[in-house]
Amino acid sequence: MSKYTVAVVGATGVVGQEIIRTLEAREFPVKTLVPLASERSAGSTVSFNDEDVTVQVLKPESFKGVDIALFSAGGSISEAFAKHAVEHGAVVIDNTSHFRMHEDVPLVVPEVNAHAIKRHKGIIANPNCSTAQMVMPLKPLHDRYKIKRVVVSTYQSVSGSGKEAMQELEDFSRANLSGREYEPQVYPHPIAFNVLPHIDVFQDNGYTKEEIKMIEETKKILEDESVQVTATTVRVPVFVGHSEAVNIEFETLPESIEEVRQILSEFPGVTVMDDPKNNVYPTPREQAGEDDTFVGRIRYDLSKPKAIEMWVVADNLRKGAALNAVQIAEAL
Amino acid sequence: MSKYTVAVVGATGVVGQEIIRTLEAREFPVKTLVPLASERSAGSTVSFNDEDVTVQVLKPESFKGVDIALFSAGGSISEAFAKHAVEHGAVVIDNTSHFRMHEDVPLVVPEVNAHAIKRHKGIIANPNCSTAQMVMPLKPLHDRYKIKRVVVSTYQSVSGSGKEAMQELEDFSRANLSGREYEPQVYPHPIAFNVLPHIDVFQDNGYTKEEIKMIEETKKILEDESVQVTATTVRVPVFVGHSEAVNIEFETLPESIEEVRQILSEFPGVTVMDDPKNNVYPTPREQAGEDDTFVGRIRYDLSKPKAIEMWVVADNLRKGAALNAVQIAEAL
Repeated sequence: MSKYTVAVVGATGVVGQEIIRTLEAREFPVKTLVPLASERSAGSTVSFNDEDVTVQVLKPESFKGVDIALFSAGGSISEAFAKHAVEHGAVVIDNTSHFRMHEDVPLVVPEVNAHAIKRHKGIIANPNCSTAQMVMPLKPLHDRYKIKRVVVSTYQSVSGSGKEAMQELEDFSRANLSGREYEPQVYPHPIAFNVLPHIDVFQDNGYTKEEIKMIEETKKILEDESVQVTATTVRVPVFVGHSEAVNIEFETLPESIEEVRQILSEFPGVTVMDDPKNNVYPTPREQAGEDDTFVGRIRYDLSKPKAIEMWVVADNLRKGAALNAVQIAEAL
Repeated sequence: MSKYTVAVVGATGVVGQEIIRTLEAREFPVKTLVPLASERSAGSTVSFNDEDVTVQVLKPESFKGVDIALFSAGGSISEAFAKHAVEHGAVVIDNTSHFRMHEDVPLVVPEVNAHAIKRHKGIIANPNCSTAQMVMPLKPLHDRYKIKRVVVSTYQSVSGSGKEAMQELEDFSRANLSGREYEPQVYPHPIAFNVLPHIDVFQDNGYTKEEIKMIEETKKILEDESVQVTATTVRVPVFVGHSEAVNIEFETLPESIEEVRQILSEFPGVTVMDDPKNNVYPTPREQAGEDDTFVGRIRYDLSKPKAIEMWVVADNLRKGAALNAVQIAEAL
């Protein structure tokens, strides 16, 4: 089997670390791991296959000899450095939003549209975390019933904002439980024991960028501009794991909820966890650390025929980021 | 001014305590306060207008001489004792779900349908907390644009489950931050750093009772069975304050979002808090302790014409419970 030189850009970040763990856990055929980061983190080490690998400063020439470069260090880093990776002959798998909507860049969730990878011109984009986990159950339902419209509300964990946000939730919660004040640093409002209807920056139309990502990326991944989506994205005081309340209106009425469960459970990477009377439904804290996307609370919408409601949970660092990126590398 | 003898059933509970504070804060004309509770709490005292009032054991004859009886001790207590209060000539304002959908019982949010109070035959019902705060902004929008359908996802605080739940969130969070395990007592899954798509018991159709309450009570309060509602109700690790992502489809297209803001801001008890680019939107933790229902994130739905999205926050112990109950008493 061929082995590859794999660069991880943003190797010390929450997602970068998870990518390295995932490469190891899935026994990706790595010849050499090249962890790259900013000067601040350079010189530190990351552990890979029981060896300590020194983190190097990211430079244009870092990509010499690299076959696959996994980027997760923010959109501006991808904008500045992806071209250097491509010039050196690497295939870039980019976890930021920078290239996702570019016409020449496939946006891929392997279970949904692996075929799109073939069209790549050096860069393949990994979708936004909340989109990735939503399109997993949407895809087989779209194929069977044709989706007209999706109304989604999210419950997103702080790990989506990075290490400092996870620390802020911990420190803030601890301070409050000890009766101490805490001044928010990462979020504009308190994140401990609170929820914030605000992820990424606001646009003129009143939506956040995160909401727009869910709308646009869903259409691109499902390869169907007719799928209408609206979203409200909300940050909740959970460390890892995103949840979504998803309302879906179809062209065709599902014959039964059991049929919907059957279709979902046959789709790779989706686990149906839906026995509410026995308190069986996914929760982010309990499903964190798992690879699959979990679906529960499946039921007919009582307000509209041909519509259903469901509850979708996944580990945002895995299916929403690192796992999906490594799955793209595997599909390559 | 006439003064009234007011009984509070469930006087030591979270809502009962809030009712007593609200009677005091709003200077309700109380001649005598009669705090009632189970044997377990009897003999303890509650503070009212700087006096300690002894809690008495709830009995059928407790209502002798009572003018107004505010019930918030659970549906079975209301079922068993409301009739005794009525027999003794009291008007019952019931905060449980027991009588809400009875044809003879008005279900009232005073700003929305105070006129319904007149029809009472001894019992007036206070709506479910998540319904009460939602119908506040829905009412003026329904009057102006006619609502066809509402898709709501909630983010509900643990105070809605009572004192033990608030203690569980505190103890569980503290344990986890100290690296200790904690066995859930109140909720079937961990509530600390987690979200649970489960409020009240599950029914055969896959909905929880809480979700059905939002669907049925909204129609009853708006006095329009044509308003279609679907709901997903979710518990979040917040102590006080419920939030709701509300998608509303109208018959008539609002001319502008500014017009929607104007209509909402003119409605009594609603405060528009909507300047997202300056991080101005309501959050439950920050709006807890306030009487109004707060609305932010108002925007056109990008998936459907004639639809909008909004974010609704209120203190569930106030507008969702105690405040609304006392407002009904005032309207009486």
